[in-house]
Formats: sequence, structure tokens, C-alpha cells
Amino acid sequence: MKIDGIAYRTIWPAADGKAVEIIDQTRLPHVFSVVRLKTVAEAATAIADMWVRGAPLIGATAAYGLALAMDADSSDAGLAAAYDMLLKTRPTAVNLHWALADVRGVLTPLPASERSAAAWVRAAEIADADVATNRAIGEHGLSLLRDISATKGHPDRLNVLTHCNAGWLATVDWGTALAPIYLAHEAGLPIHVWVDETRPRNQGASLTAWELGRHGVPHTVIADNAGGHLMQHGLVDACIVGTDRTTATGDVCNKIGTYLKALAAFDNGVPFFVALPSPTIDWALADGVREIPIEQRAAAEQSHLSGLTADGRVEAVQVVPEGSPCANYAFDVTPARLVTALITERGVCAASRDGLASLFPERVIQ
Amino acid sequence: MKIDGIAYRTIWPAADGKAVEIIDQTRLPHVFSVVRLKTVAEAATAIADMWVRGAPLIGATAAYGLALAMDADSSDAGLAAAYDMLLKTRPTAVNLHWALADVRGVLTPLPASERSAAAWVRAAEIADADVATNRAIGEHGLSLLRDISATKGHPDRLNVLTHCNAGWLATVDWGTALAPIYLAHEAGLPIHVWVDETRPRNQGASLTAWELGRHGVPHTVIADNAGGHLMQHGLVDACIVGTDRTTATGDVCNKIGTYLKALAAFDNGVPFFVALPSPTIDWALADGVREIPIEQRAAAEQSHLSGLTADGRVEAVQVVPEGSPCANYAFDVTPARLVTALITERGVCAASRDGLASLFPERVIQ
Repeated sequence: MKIDGIAYRTIWPAADGKAVEIIDQTRLPHVFSVVRLKTVAEAATAIADMWVRGAPLIGATAAYGLALAMDADSSDAGLAAAYDMLLKTRPTAVNLHWALADVRGVLTPLPASERSAAAWVRAAEIADADVATNRAIGEHGLSLLRDISATKGHPDRLNVLTHCNAGWLATVDWGTALAPIYLAHEAGLPIHVWVDETRPRNQGASLTAWELGRHGVPHTVIADNAGGHLMQHGLVDACIVGTDRTTATGDVCNKIGTYLKALAAFDNGVPFFVALPSPTIDWALADGVREIPIEQRAAAEQSHLSGLTADGRVEAVQVVPEGSPCANYAFDVTPARLVTALITERGVCAASRDGLASLFPERVIQ
Repeated sequence: MKIDGIAYRTIWPAADGKAVEIIDQTRLPHVFSVVRLKTVAEAATAIADMWVRGAPLIGATAAYGLALAMDADSSDAGLAAAYDMLLKTRPTAVNLHWALADVRGVLTPLPASERSAAAWVRAAEIADADVATNRAIGEHGLSLLRDISATKGHPDRLNVLTHCNAGWLATVDWGTALAPIYLAHEAGLPIHVWVDETRPRNQGASLTAWELGRHGVPHTVIADNAGGHLMQHGLVDACIVGTDRTTATGDVCNKIGTYLKALAAFDNGVPFFVALPSPTIDWALADGVREIPIEQRAAAEQSHLSGLTADGRVEAVQVVPEGSPCANYAFDVTPARLVTALITERGVCAASRDGLASLFPERVIQ
């Protein structure tokens, strides 16, 4: 998407062909900084230290990391070392594992002399495939937004609420939950986005607000507490969120607090959509609340918060009293009964086993 | 309640009888500072600048402010000037208006020479009445918590979730929502409190966590997003919140985000209690969502946040990108259908017109 009028992806090969460039997302929203990754070690640092984040972007970065590795040492030992180094960066990231295995599978049968070129091609294919998937999600979601707009008699403002960041910054381009929003904006629908702050890591206030603002999409940042009130008063026409993991029955594991917004949407008859690329579906799971373990992250993410000081420094401040313990649950599970529809790259379906089976018949166990 | 073992109220006459002392709540939780108010002008500043906050405490401070005024000038003109000065501090605060009218009503018929002594007596009565009201709410709430504990077979931990600050800092002592919690703690129930951070003003993380911690009540600060997940997993035995305004039908207007927690409690069969002194009931209202206007406060409360820097300064930092608008709705309304019971100074009742009428028959229009 665009940053102040200039089109960007979140990762791209440098013009000289000797490096990959990324946006350092740890410095957003206060500093926009492009970083040049010249070696596999730098790519590993970029993933481990969360300069890049979001499953699809992590996968693409890992793929380009292997390409950088092949430029330096395309031997079997070089490939194995690079694979191991990258895999260790975020051990639980499914996309990381998948992208590394994919590229290694392409490179292993090749002679060492051909691996570098093949790795750059394959990494680009992985990045392009993510863009195409998200663009397709966007088109399907746009149809839903057009329908809502038409039902409302083409209102002056179409209000969509989102939680966390499932935008282009989490992918290579377009995003998942935000893809329909970008397309709606480009199609001329009068879209306005309520951006949940998304405590404790503030991905909404820092990343979603930043990318919408830079692309020119009207939006307003609100406390996570505010969505229910807005829905009670007709100020939300639809919710669209992403998901980290979706069960075969349509339960949605996403950023903590998603469940509360889904409850409010259900209570007020507001459509609640979840946008997802199909690899986030875990076909082995049937009950998200019982079966999906919820990561607890560092208490410091709740007790401290980073922001811009009056004199322009980015500084962390402590927001709880000394001695008060904090807990930091990273995700929650929204039961399928609260989800109006799933938006996938293959189309829109009910959040149910039958709904998913209709789009992905090859995944249904006979 | 206690601060590190020493009993405090939030307001008290100074030992020398020439001033009133308060806790400067704007400096909590990072600095505990007692301020001496020597004149009515200082009392007015304490209210206007929110050194004291919470309806009951504002009322008590205004009453003591009139006493300070009578020490300086007990003429009719002095009384009128002090009344006007104090009333202007927080024009929409119902308790402020009520306390000022009450004390003025006591003083007006008296000769000027008797007004000072009478004002100090009346201010103390108002403060004591608030303490008695909250203590009664606490006793009634304690019965509910004992029942829940017994039903659970006297567990190792009784988890209560609260939102915002309806603790002793918002009253003269005990608090409303926290009164049952303090009494349960003193009665030896194994109480543990999930403290919602309560964005955007963070009254939970800063005030509730501070007062629970200083009194020695086990607690954990969580993001406002976390409560639904905790309830899904059986980690909340009851919710208790306060209210700013309650309709005659039991709808509850409280800090923004309360409605989302009530939805989650209802969805998971967790009791959701609202603690209130009866003056917060607005007997003229029947539909809270439609009839109660919701204040929108300054966007800067959402875009900026104060905390303690690593080198011990309290500093505000900006947490949204430059140019992203923010909205700041202060309250929301929880429909009575989601409220398990109201806890008043007269006892516990259903959140309904009949429930309230059973406790307050004199208020029912025949």
C-alpha cells in the first residue's frame, strides 16, 4: 500500500540485487525507517527482534533470508546452517517453518551454483503468492461491504471496526482484515475505520492507525473499551478482524479482546467478519476454547508502554504501581457462533465445519 | 482503608482544626502525597483539578470547603461566595450540588457566629454517612461472595474482576465495588482481584491496583481486553463494578467498557454485580441506552498516557501516530438484562423496576 503517496510492500529486493529491504516496524508509528538486510544473520535478527512481524511477512523474510545465505555460501552445509539459524528466530511461527521447508525443498536438489538464483526466484514467488491471497480476500470482503453499504442506502459513512493489526504491515501487502477496507476506499465507498488501540501491545494505535493514515484511509483510534458503546448506538456497520488460528469448525483465535467485540457485535446485530488466508486454518481442531493453548507473554508489556515524549524521544513509561503484578494473555478464542462469516482467498463462508468444507472440500476427511 | 498498615480516609480534618487534609490523587500511583487545604479556594482547586475525584469524595470535599470558608468569613455574603466558588468546580457533579445545598441549608438559619462550628459538624456527618453507606454495601456484597465461595466448595482463590476505580479513593472510605472485596479480605476469604487497566484514563491500573496493593489485597492488573478470556476459562468467579448513574429499571451507566465485561459474564454464566449507593439511582430514567447522554472527553486522554520513566519522572507520552484522530467516550450503558444483581446500602436486589422498588418503596411513583 502507499506511504504518503508512494507504493510500498513490507519487504522487497534491493535495487542492487545484493540485499533485501524492510520497514523496521519496532520504530513505528513515530519513526519510518527502511532497513537493508545484507546477510542471513541480519534477516534472522529482523525476525527475532520483530523488525518484521505477522505470519506471512515472517515467512517471506525467512525465504529471502535463505536467498541471502545462498549468495554467501550455497553449499549443503551453508543451506543447513541458514535454515537452522532462521528457524530458531520464532520457533512457534507456523509460516516461518513452512516457508523455510518450501525454499529448502526447491534448493536441495539443485547444484550449488544454481541455488542463489533459484532462492531469489522462490522467495519472490512466496511474496507474490501472499499478495495475491490477500488481494483475493480483499475482493471477497469488498463484496460484503458493498452489500452493507447498499442495504444502508449508500450512507455518507461506512463504519468498520477492527482490532489489532491485520493490515499490510503484517503481510507482504494488502493485509487480511484491512484488504477489504483498502479496496473499499479505492472503490470510493465512504469507509471510516474505528481502530481499537489493542492493549497491551497497542498494535492498533501504533500500526493500524499508522498504515491507514499514511495510505489516506479515514480512521479514528479508540480505547478497546469503546466498541460496545459504538455498536449500541449504530456507529459500527461491520467488524472485520484477522485470526492467528482458526479451527475446522470456525472458532477463531485472535488477539486478546477479539471475543469481547464479537459478543458486542452479536448483541447488537452488527456483522462480525474474520478475514483469513487458508493456511491459518487448523483442520485438526474442533473446539477452539478447549483446544488452543493461549500464550502468556511478559508482564512488562502490560506494566510498561512506549510512546513519544514531548521532546521527541521514544521512551517506555511504567503505568502500574510498583509491586502490582500484571498478567498478559496474548490471544482469546471467539466461538464460531459469534462469527457472521469467514472471508478467505477462495470466498466467503459460514464459520462452521460445513461452511469451510464448501470452500475447501479437499481438506475434509472422508 | 490502610496504606501500608496505617488507616486512612480520603479526607479528614487536620489535627490542628485549621485545615482539611486529602490525598493528591493526580500523583497516584507513583507518588503518595497528602495535601493540606487551608482555604475554600484551595478546596475548590482540589475539586476542579481532580486532586480528589469520585462523586462521594467530591461531595465531602465541598462540605469541608464550606467549613473552611466559614472560618474565614461566616457572613451571608461569605457563605454565598463560597457556595458559588465550589459549585463552579465540577458543574455536572450531582453529589457536589447536593452536599453544598445540604450544608448551606444547615448554615443559613444560624447566626454567623455559630456557622463555622456547625459547618465542621455537618461536613463530618456527610463524610461519616458516606462511610456508613459504603460499609453497608460491603456487608451485603460480602454475603454474595460468601455464597459463591461456599458454592465452589471454599476454593483456594476467589477471583473477582473489577473495572475502573470504585474503591475507597472514590469515596471517603471503603468504596462501593471494592467494599465487599475489602470485607471479604478481612473476613479471610481467599480473595484475588483481576484489575482491568481501564483505558483511556487507566483508573484501574493506577488507582484500584494502588489501593488494593497498599491495603494488602492480592490482585493482578490485566488489559481491558483480557476479561472475556479469563471468564471462558473459569478464572473469574464474579464481577463487581460501580456505577455513575442507574436507571429506575436497573440499566447501569458506568465507565466505558463495563458493557463488554457484562456481555462476557452473561455468556459464561459469571455473576455480574453492580454496587451503588442509592443516590446514584435516577428514578426518572427507564432506558439507559437511549436516555443517558454519554460524555465525550478530550482526545488527548486517548492519544497520550502518563507513566513513570526509568529515571523516576512522571511523564506523558504520545501513543498514536501524528495525525491520527482519537475519540474518547467516557461511559457506556449496561442493560439491566446483563446485571445479576444490584448491591445497595439497603440490600441486594434484581436489576429491575420491581427489584429496586422492593428496596426503595418510597421512591416508587404510585
